[in-house]
Amino acid sequence: MTQLVSTRLVTAYAAPAAAAPLVATQIERRAVGAHDVLIEIKYSGICHSDIHTVRGEWGEQSFPLAPGHEIVGVVTEIGAEVTRHQIGDTVGVGCMVNSCGECDYCLAGDQQYCRQGMVGTYGAVDRDGSTTQGGYSTHVVVTEDFVLSIPEGINLQNAAPLLCAGITTYSPLKRWGAGAGRKVAIVGLGGLGHMAVKIAAAMGAEVTVLSQTLSKQEDGLRLGATHYYATSNPETFKELAGSFDLILNTVSAPLEISSYLGLLRVDGAMVNVGAPAEPLPVNAMALIGGRRSFAGSMIGGIAETQEMLDFCAAHSLSADIELISAEQINEAYERVLSSDVRYRFVIDTATMA
Amino acid sequence: MTQLVSTRLVTAYAAPAAAAPLVATQIERRAVGAHDVLIEIKYSGICHSDIHTVRGEWGEQSFPLAPGHEIVGVVTEIGAEVTRHQIGDTVGVGCMVNSCGECDYCLAGDQQYCRQGMVGTYGAVDRDGSTTQGGYSTHVVVTEDFVLSIPEGINLQNAAPLLCAGITTYSPLKRWGAGAGRKVAIVGLGGLGHMAVKIAAAMGAEVTVLSQTLSKQEDGLRLGATHYYATSNPETFKELAGSFDLILNTVSAPLEISSYLGLLRVDGAMVNVGAPAEPLPVNAMALIGGRRSFAGSMIGGIAETQEMLDFCAAHSLSADIELISAEQINEAYERVLSSDVRYRFVIDTATMA
Repeated sequence: MTQLVSTRLVTAYAAPAAAAPLVATQIERRAVGAHDVLIEIKYSGICHSDIHTVRGEWGEQSFPLAPGHEIVGVVTEIGAEVTRHQIGDTVGVGCMVNSCGECDYCLAGDQQYCRQGMVGTYGAVDRDGSTTQGGYSTHVVVTEDFVLSIPEGINLQNAAPLLCAGITTYSPLKRWGAGAGRKVAIVGLGGLGHMAVKIAAAMGAEVTVLSQTLSKQEDGLRLGATHYYATSNPETFKELAGSFDLILNTVSAPLEISSYLGLLRVDGAMVNVGAPAEPLPVNAMALIGGRRSFAGSMIGGIAETQEMLDFCAAHSLSADIELISAEQINEAYERVLSSDVRYRFVIDTATMA
Repeated sequence: MTQLVSTRLVTAYAAPAAAAPLVATQIERRAVGAHDVLIEIKYSGICHSDIHTVRGEWGEQSFPLAPGHEIVGVVTEIGAEVTRHQIGDTVGVGCMVNSCGECDYCLAGDQQYCRQGMVGTYGAVDRDGSTTQGGYSTHVVVTEDFVLSIPEGINLQNAAPLLCAGITTYSPLKRWGAGAGRKVAIVGLGGLGHMAVKIAAAMGAEVTVLSQTLSKQEDGLRLGATHYYATSNPETFKELAGSFDLILNTVSAPLEISSYLGLLRVDGAMVNVGAPAEPLPVNAMALIGGRRSFAGSMIGGIAETQEMLDFCAAHSLSADIELISAEQINEAYERVLSSDVRYRFVIDTATMA
């Protein structure tokens, strides 16, 4: 630890520039402050947004940039005033590592909507002025309030994707009332969608997957869905008209939103967690004619993320993953872009040594 | 009454064809059935949708067609099995006169979303196969379940617009939680908007009017708003960013929805009650970045309409109107189309004699 703190250099896989593949490199981590936790990272999930970000598709970045916001590991050092975690604890870090802590949203536990802007886990300016670096790395230093406890009973490598894909789907499913007696459709069966199916089913909802084709039908039913429909078939929209209480849309590509709104019951909501760049045309009558809502949701707060982890442990849920070595990251990116992953790549950071 | 029942012909102002002005004519009313109420109409409000409908802009109609769905009057005859109303009662009829009564939505009191389709007060096919005729008329026969009681204390001519403009705004204001400690913006200060301001203020909300210009500012503040902003001024969207819990949009013309969504706090909702024909482009990030909703709402159920009338009576609320004679209907239409009405035209049906 002494060596680490003094040099503050750790191994990471980072993009040296927007157009470049990720390579092994050394990045700086800050010294462990009074409220910080040093985590030895064990596994780090690959989220589609990592790719957009390191390729500069979501705005300019400062390079080198190590992405990764689905982080699990073990606490190896704590600051003098840390009370929430101890050395040896199994912990996780998700999409944010800081926030102002003082605004109404932070105080309400919605740090992701912090009025000063939450500090993203990578590529963001932290409150000390440094640029954050993500989880494709051997170590990370995070203020204790943004470090989650991974409950016993979840396989650690399968837990990593919960920190983004898990909370991003759990939060809207809970908020919009997925549960017994409710019919919930999940649009898209990728990294987010497969967690959404598991979580919604565990909440007691009757789950339907709406996917472009039936190619993953067997998986969908195994994961907890009761029904599976192809959205490429126009009959789907007739047969399911007016039937869902909630549609959770995990697809980032633009969909014909008004057609999906027609699948909702009165008072139903369609909630987007994926964000297409283009504005989506919405037919106001599709909303008015059924008192429906078209909504959005972004990850979840810290306490809610802990609640999600505890929920997943209680229901023996975690992500279906493909474990890869650090050298496979660039290849994995191509496979993510071609939807060739069931359902999340997770990097074994031991391969970074 | 005997004469009326036998001939079933009553005086009305109706459009003889889609392109034609309204003229005095005779229309049929059905004989008073066991569950029916015969109402001698006293006043009938003019709603913008009357104009769209009789001009055939919302689809083909059968003519002659008498519009009007803001009806108040006095019960002059009741069917043998009527229990809810008595001869001499002051009553009202709104946008619907029937529904299946058996589907889940009807049973839940949301007759406006009846799975068989609610029966509109005019231009709709009733459950007996006849085409409904609206309130620009001296009499109407309506099944008792769709007849509201006008509480004492509301001036009858000012009560008429409550049957559409009142419930259309009351229902979403209540459902989306307008009340003490909540900041509510009303977009548009027309027939619906002016009722929305009164009702939201009476519910205890802090009300802001968002109007194209400041031309009606004095009125808006008198009606109950605390703030009034011109949406033609781009500064408005900067100054009010992130400030409202609820935006009720009463404007039927297409607005830049994503700009308005930016005015909402986290968890805020923008609810449309006006329905532009064109799809509205919505930026998904404007929803996701604040867990916001873009929603719609259509009138309200029968029990809720009664609740609204009782609320208005308790708070001494009713519409600001301009009373006109039947001969002024066509002129009033032109003034509605040029937004030259403060805030609702109401026809004195005594002038139809």
